[in-house]
Amino acid sequence: MKTTKITLQYDGTRYLGWQRQEKEDKDRTIQGKLEAVLSKMTEEPVEVQGSGRTDAGVHALGQVASCHLNTALSENEIQQYLNTYLPEDIAAVKVEEAPERFHARLNAKAKRYQYRINNSAVSDILEHKFEFWVKEPLDVKAMQAAASHLVGTHDFLNFSSLKKSKKSTVRQLYAVEVKAAENKITIDYYGNGFLYNMVRIMTGTLIEVGKGERAADSIPAIFTAPSREAAGFTAPPKGLFLMDVEY
Amino acid sequence: MKTTKITLQYDGTRYLGWQRQEKEDKDRTIQGKLEAVLSKMTEEPVEVQGSGRTDAGVHALGQVASCHLNTALSENEIQQYLNTYLPEDIAAVKVEEAPERFHARLNAKAKRYQYRINNSAVSDILEHKFEFWVKEPLDVKAMQAAASHLVGTHDFLNFSSLKKSKKSTVRQLYAVEVKAAENKITIDYYGNGFLYNMVRIMTGTLIEVGKGERAADSIPAIFTAPSREAAGFTAPPKGLFLMDVEY
Repeated sequence: MKTTKITLQYDGTRYLGWQRQEKEDKDRTIQGKLEAVLSKMTEEPVEVQGSGRTDAGVHALGQVASCHLNTALSENEIQQYLNTYLPEDIAAVKVEEAPERFHARLNAKAKRYQYRINNSAVSDILEHKFEFWVKEPLDVKAMQAAASHLVGTHDFLNFSSLKKSKKSTVRQLYAVEVKAAENKITIDYYGNGFLYNMVRIMTGTLIEVGKGERAADSIPAIFTAPSREAAGFTAPPKGLFLMDVEY
Repeated sequence: MKTTKITLQYDGTRYLGWQRQEKEDKDRTIQGKLEAVLSKMTEEPVEVQGSGRTDAGVHALGQVASCHLNTALSENEIQQYLNTYLPEDIAAVKVEEAPERFHARLNAKAKRYQYRINNSAVSDILEHKFEFWVKEPLDVKAMQAAASHLVGTHDFLNFSSLKKSKKSTVRQLYAVEVKAAENKITIDYYGNGFLYNMVRIMTGTLIEVGKGERAADSIPAIFTAPSREAAGFTAPPKGLFLMDVEY
C-alpha cells in the first residue's frame, strides 16, 4: 500500500461535479471516473478523497486527490496509466508519493479559486465554456473596493447556499483580487476554506456591484443580515476554477 | 437592400457544419442559426452565403458570410443584434457594408486554415475541444520537409474525399507552415482554394510522417497515385480552424 497524491485538471462542463454519485450517474462525476481508472489499474476497489467537492460544471486546474494504492507501479507509471484511460477532459498533471496519513481534504490548509468573466459585447468562442459572459460594462474599481470588504475572518453563512449549520461557517479570506485585462475580468479568491457556493455567491455579489446595482460599501452589512437574500445571485459554475490547494 | 459582409467566429463542436440542413437539423448548422437571427431582425426570409462550407465539428476564427438585408439598421446595430441573439458559440466579430455584387464564396481569392495538435502525454483540458491530442512524439522537422512538397500548384484530388469530379481539382497552396512551441504543434495552410476534407487529409498525412509511418519525400507520389488511399488518414475536425478569407 502506498499513499498517493494526485493533482488533477478538469473541464467540468459535462460532469455532475466532483463527488461520486450512485449507480448510473457514477460515470458523470470526476471522482467516479478517477476511481474507475485506479480500480482497473490495481484490480481492486479504490476510493479517492478530493480536497473538496466542486459543483456540477465547475472546472479545476489544481484539484488534489489522495488514495491508498496496492500497486508496484511507480508514480510516473501511475500518471501515464491515468492519462491513458481518463477522458480528455480530465488530466493527471502530477502524481506523487505522500506520507502515509496524508488526506487531501483533512490536510488542506488553504485554497485558491479563480472566477473568469468576459466583459465584452462579443462572445469569445474559444473561452465560452470557461467564463461567464457579462455584456454590460462592469465598474472594476467598484468591484475592487467591494472585494476588499470580503477579505478577513467573517461568518460567511449568508454567502453560501447552506441551511443554518451546526458546524462553524466562519472562514478566513486572505485575499480577493479583481483584475481586468482588455475585456476579461478575473477574480482570485484565496482563503482557508470555502462554504457551499460561497465563491459563486461572492462573485455574483461583486458583479452586482460592478453593474451599479449595489454599492461597494454595502458588503459588510451582508455578513450580519438576517438571511442569505442579502447577498447577490449565484454566478454560473462555468466561470469558476479551483486553482490550487495548499497543504 | 444593402449588401452586408459579416465576419464570424464559431466553436463548431455542437454543429453539423456550416451548411443549412433541412427541417429539424436546420438549427444545428451555423448558416441556419445566422439566417434565423437575420430573418428575425428584418422580419423577412434572409439567405446568407458563406465563403465555403466547414464540416461538422470544424471551427472558425474568420469565416465570412454575405447577404442582402432589407433594414435601416447601421452595421454596428446589426452586429449588436447578432451578438444578442446568436448563441455563445457563434460571434459576429465584424459587420461591414459591401459592394452591391459582393458574394462571400464567389469573390473569395484565398483562405487560411490552421490545424492544432497537442503533442503531449497529458491532455490540455482547456483546449481539448480545439486540438487533436497525439501522444506519440512527432518529428516536426520531418513534417516540415513533407509540408514543403504540398506547396505549389497540384491536382489535390487524392487529398480529398471527393469522388472523381468534373470540376477541376487543381489548387494552388501558397504556404504550409508547421510550427512547434512546447508541446503544441500548429499547421497553417494558405491557398487559393481547398477541396472537401483536403486540409484534414493533408494534416493526417503530415501526422503519419511525424510518427515515422511514411517518409517526408513520399508526398509527391501521392498526387499521381491511382487513388486517395495513397494519402493519410482524415484528421479529426475538432483541431481545424478556418482562420481568414481573402477578397
